[in-house]
Amino acid sequence: MPQTQSKIDQRDLPPFLAACRGLPVPHTPVWIMRQAGRYLPEYRKVREKADFVTLTRTPELAAEVTLQPLRRFDFDASIIFSDIMTPLQGMGVALDFKPGPVVDEPIRTRKQVDALRPLLPDQDVPFVMESIRMVRSELPSKVPLIGFAGSPFTLFCYLVAGKPSKEFSEPRSFLHAEPAISALLLDRLADAMVVYLRAQADAGAQALMLFESWGGLLGPQDYATYGMPPVRRIIEGLSDLDVPLIYFANQGGANLRLISDLKVDVVGLDWRVPIEDARRILGAGKAVQGNLDPAVLFAPKDTLCRRIDDVLADAGSGPGHIFNLGHGIWPETDPDAVARLVDHVHERTSDSK
Amino acid sequence: MPQTQSKIDQRDLPPFLAACRGLPVPHTPVWIMRQAGRYLPEYRKVREKADFVTLTRTPELAAEVTLQPLRRFDFDASIIFSDIMTPLQGMGVALDFKPGPVVDEPIRTRKQVDALRPLLPDQDVPFVMESIRMVRSELPSKVPLIGFAGSPFTLFCYLVAGKPSKEFSEPRSFLHAEPAISALLLDRLADAMVVYLRAQADAGAQALMLFESWGGLLGPQDYATYGMPPVRRIIEGLSDLDVPLIYFANQGGANLRLISDLKVDVVGLDWRVPIEDARRILGAGKAVQGNLDPAVLFAPKDTLCRRIDDVLADAGSGPGHIFNLGHGIWPETDPDAVARLVDHVHERTSDSK
Repeated sequence: MPQTQSKIDQRDLPPFLAACRGLPVPHTPVWIMRQAGRYLPEYRKVREKADFVTLTRTPELAAEVTLQPLRRFDFDASIIFSDIMTPLQGMGVALDFKPGPVVDEPIRTRKQVDALRPLLPDQDVPFVMESIRMVRSELPSKVPLIGFAGSPFTLFCYLVAGKPSKEFSEPRSFLHAEPAISALLLDRLADAMVVYLRAQADAGAQALMLFESWGGLLGPQDYATYGMPPVRRIIEGLSDLDVPLIYFANQGGANLRLISDLKVDVVGLDWRVPIEDARRILGAGKAVQGNLDPAVLFAPKDTLCRRIDDVLADAGSGPGHIFNLGHGIWPETDPDAVARLVDHVHERTSDSK
Repeated sequence: MPQTQSKIDQRDLPPFLAACRGLPVPHTPVWIMRQAGRYLPEYRKVREKADFVTLTRTPELAAEVTLQPLRRFDFDASIIFSDIMTPLQGMGVALDFKPGPVVDEPIRTRKQVDALRPLLPDQDVPFVMESIRMVRSELPSKVPLIGFAGSPFTLFCYLVAGKPSKEFSEPRSFLHAEPAISALLLDRLADAMVVYLRAQADAGAQALMLFESWGGLLGPQDYATYGMPPVRRIIEGLSDLDVPLIYFANQGGANLRLISDLKVDVVGLDWRVPIEDARRILGAGKAVQGNLDPAVLFAPKDTLCRRIDDVLADAGSGPGHIFNLGHGIWPETDPDAVARLVDHVHERTSDSK
């Protein structure tokens, strides 16, 4: 793909989108997962007046908190403020956030899977698309907006467990006790995420990210059986779109060989995977995103900068690296550390690529 | 090490201890993490009359629940019923189990680290050694008893966070905010675990296991800085003992290259690490233990047997494999599945090695 772009196209692309496509960039683009969130006092202020669900369902508020980090920091991308569980509410799943998603009736039967409605984004979750349109109208052209969804297996974990969990033993045992119902539910979720992500792209999202938050709980054999097929179904369902697809493979180190077969543009890496190893396994056709440990933001300035340099060195001097944390930023983080991070990545990589 | 043992020694060794030392075995030995626990009705019955802490501190009860699974299943090893946090209570840390360990005053200062008492096992936790002596007197000679401790970083996680956590963001950020206090605490914990494990061996434990439950939260660089050095300190402190040392590296896939440098006899693998890859990285000098996903125990019998065969095939036909789950067994597991597992491992591997 990189080779088919003309020089003029390359110069027109914002650095984030260029990096997604493995093209040369003026500096390594940087954004961070959960950059709109509780570590920002201005976010907490909005949350004092509106609960989390209200925030995700009110375009003015979702757009406001999406834009907050962009006013403070020189991020190269924004990501729409929403939750991976939001579209499931549109499919008829009753759930609440306490603060993690809690499902009223965890899915355990074929009947419950059959009762799920196909997602009609413009009818079920119009506020997400409206948020995207509002953010796009305010963002400078050099800062692309990312839309996102949860991976089918990750959504499956919450739907079957019914609540957040450390090990997700119920969904993981359900896979083995009820493989047919599991596969059906995973397919339904994949179909819904196809139309959901497509609607986000239609509304203006310039890249799409799939959060495989819990796929790393599956060993390679079960990831191949249950994790990958619905992801492949999503990728195929979106193959006509001209927006880069990012796949965040949290805890996915052991599954990278399988992931290398997925036709995604970018693979997001958690902080435990050496980027150099990942790039070798994934091959030259994929860009990578990551992967500073969010804990390192608590280090003194010198250490923080050294650790950023380590990540940059690990990523190498070739194109196709988007700097990010290896996981979402923690609420206790000092925003000044984020400013340091963004500036240091830009300074260190400007004109070097 | 294998080559220095005589033929006669080999035949005298129980299969579990032979496998720990990479020696030929009549069948692949098998035991499972948390084999004494809530999935057994007889365990739940004891727990109706005594809470968890009472169980760990009353040798008759600890010995009873340690022996329960051995009466049902043909396990090749037993592990003393206790908790990794138990010795910390002996060092002056006030904590309770609700049901995970909750520390009254999470450790965050140098003063708190200095206030920790060196562990005197026979005075602080005599009941553990008494439990070991009681179990040893009742176990047949072919079933060795494993003593254990938590790794310093894992204990550090609970002490600094003060409670169980999914991400342990507090201890992980504390490492970077307070590296000197962190290193001091980790060393103190290592020193305590040396005397604790030594006391268990003196009381009759025939193998020692170190649970690195949370070391997999550290990327390779931080694992090398904070995770490994205190483990090495423990290994060196026990180097004169003639009992095999097992290091369970939960979520440790990314750190196996570093772990290959540790002078342990056995590395325990979680269910996400292909055993063949791990053996190649760890080298021929180490045995491996694992690693069936505990979720697979919920599969129908045929699938369960096939998946056991997959693990055995992954481990290869050479010596130095101890069959185990890749994580502790879940309380909801059917004990019949465990019986199937043990029998199938024995049948499939008898006289084949």
